[in-house]
Amino acid sequence: MNPDLNTTHLSVIAFDADDTLWHNENIYLNTHEKFQQLLRQYHPEEWIQQRLNETEIRNLQHFGYGIKGFTLSMIETAIELSEGRIGSNEIQTIIELGKEMLRAPVELLEGVRETIAQLSASRQLMLITKGDLLDQEAKIARSGLGDYFSHIEVVSEKNVETYQRLAAKHHIAPAHFLMVGNSLKSDILPVIAMGGQAIYIPYHTTWVHERVADEDLEAKQYVTIQNISQLPAFWEK
Amino acid sequence: MNPDLNTTHLSVIAFDADDTLWHNENIYLNTHEKFQQLLRQYHPEEWIQQRLNETEIRNLQHFGYGIKGFTLSMIETAIELSEGRIGSNEIQTIIELGKEMLRAPVELLEGVRETIAQLSASRQLMLITKGDLLDQEAKIARSGLGDYFSHIEVVSEKNVETYQRLAAKHHIAPAHFLMVGNSLKSDILPVIAMGGQAIYIPYHTTWVHERVADEDLEAKQYVTIQNISQLPAFWEK
Repeated sequence: MNPDLNTTHLSVIAFDADDTLWHNENIYLNTHEKFQQLLRQYHPEEWIQQRLNETEIRNLQHFGYGIKGFTLSMIETAIELSEGRIGSNEIQTIIELGKEMLRAPVELLEGVRETIAQLSASRQLMLITKGDLLDQEAKIARSGLGDYFSHIEVVSEKNVETYQRLAAKHHIAPAHFLMVGNSLKSDILPVIAMGGQAIYIPYHTTWVHERVADEDLEAKQYVTIQNISQLPAFWEK
Repeated sequence: MNPDLNTTHLSVIAFDADDTLWHNENIYLNTHEKFQQLLRQYHPEEWIQQRLNETEIRNLQHFGYGIKGFTLSMIETAIELSEGRIGSNEIQTIIELGKEMLRAPVELLEGVRETIAQLSASRQLMLITKGDLLDQEAKIARSGLGDYFSHIEVVSEKNVETYQRLAAKHHIAPAHFLMVGNSLKSDILPVIAMGGQAIYIPYHTTWVHERVADEDLEAKQYVTIQNISQLPAFWEK
């Protein structure tokens, strides 16, 4: 599971953003809690959470990733779960929850600023993030990290084709492509499938849609570290 | 207003997409009408339309461009205009209107397919469009035009900085940058401000947010044509 990483030919390091560089999933979890409080008169909280997850995943085909689609899914779930009894006040509250999420401050994970600054001094860094374009751009700007990255790519999905397209676009051989991220499904497995290298930094929680089965990880070659600060050591060996 | 276009050094032609290559604003107008019908028991239609426009423009800072943000603005307007009397059935109907818009077929404007195919045979074409990433990608795919463009850029805003960044990224001198589009505000004026060249193809209707005052157009050098089919002639002179 933790093979030696071949760093000889790696001139570019690509990073995921949400929950790799800054906290994101906890903003969703926090909103989930407020949403459950809003609907607790109709259903048990666990059921509300499950139904919201289902609506969100069902709506991905329409809305894609991001807060605006999530907000629409909250409204849809609230109407369904209350069997239409939800008031328009509560629906306006849900819209405000969405706007609050969009305005949420960007909180960097521990060690991120120092590590990114250090790595950017000697090699090119790339940011590859999925979600709403405007929202991701705003977070990059607020993070203060934008200038460390020579390329920033906001994509609508992270699959093998996405990484193949980006590697080709930036003239990087797949074997020389290194991705660092917190999602096995989006940052690690598709990069390995392309023939690239990947470093997994687990976040304390994973959105249900991003979880992968254990058997999908069998025999997959990637490195796991616990904190981004451990990254520069791979180039010092 | 219609100076001679200097096409000598133009190796790349950049196109806007919505209402330049395919119909878009009429999908919004169509939804506006359905929205007015939904709320006509509360207010006159003209007032509903005006308030929806206001909410949409006020929310651009939160939501950016695109159908998901527009749908959230419709819900917000419906709650406000009905003073909270709107039912959750109607709100679900509004969400469905949003999903319908996202699924709407892509209808090319007259002459687009032939002209784009013809131009792409001898020069590089670029697509520069703003809005939701997933939605724009889906429209490009459904249009069948994607392969004619060597570069596709989905941006969150089209201002002078956007065009300067794109020209630099693609190593095009501003004076050699040509943009073709239907929005004076987004496709023409910022490109002229950068020192580039622009061809304006008016669409039969312009979203209120994209309208510009006559005095902003004074002494601005751009070419106006009525149909995209007139474009190849500029290279034949």
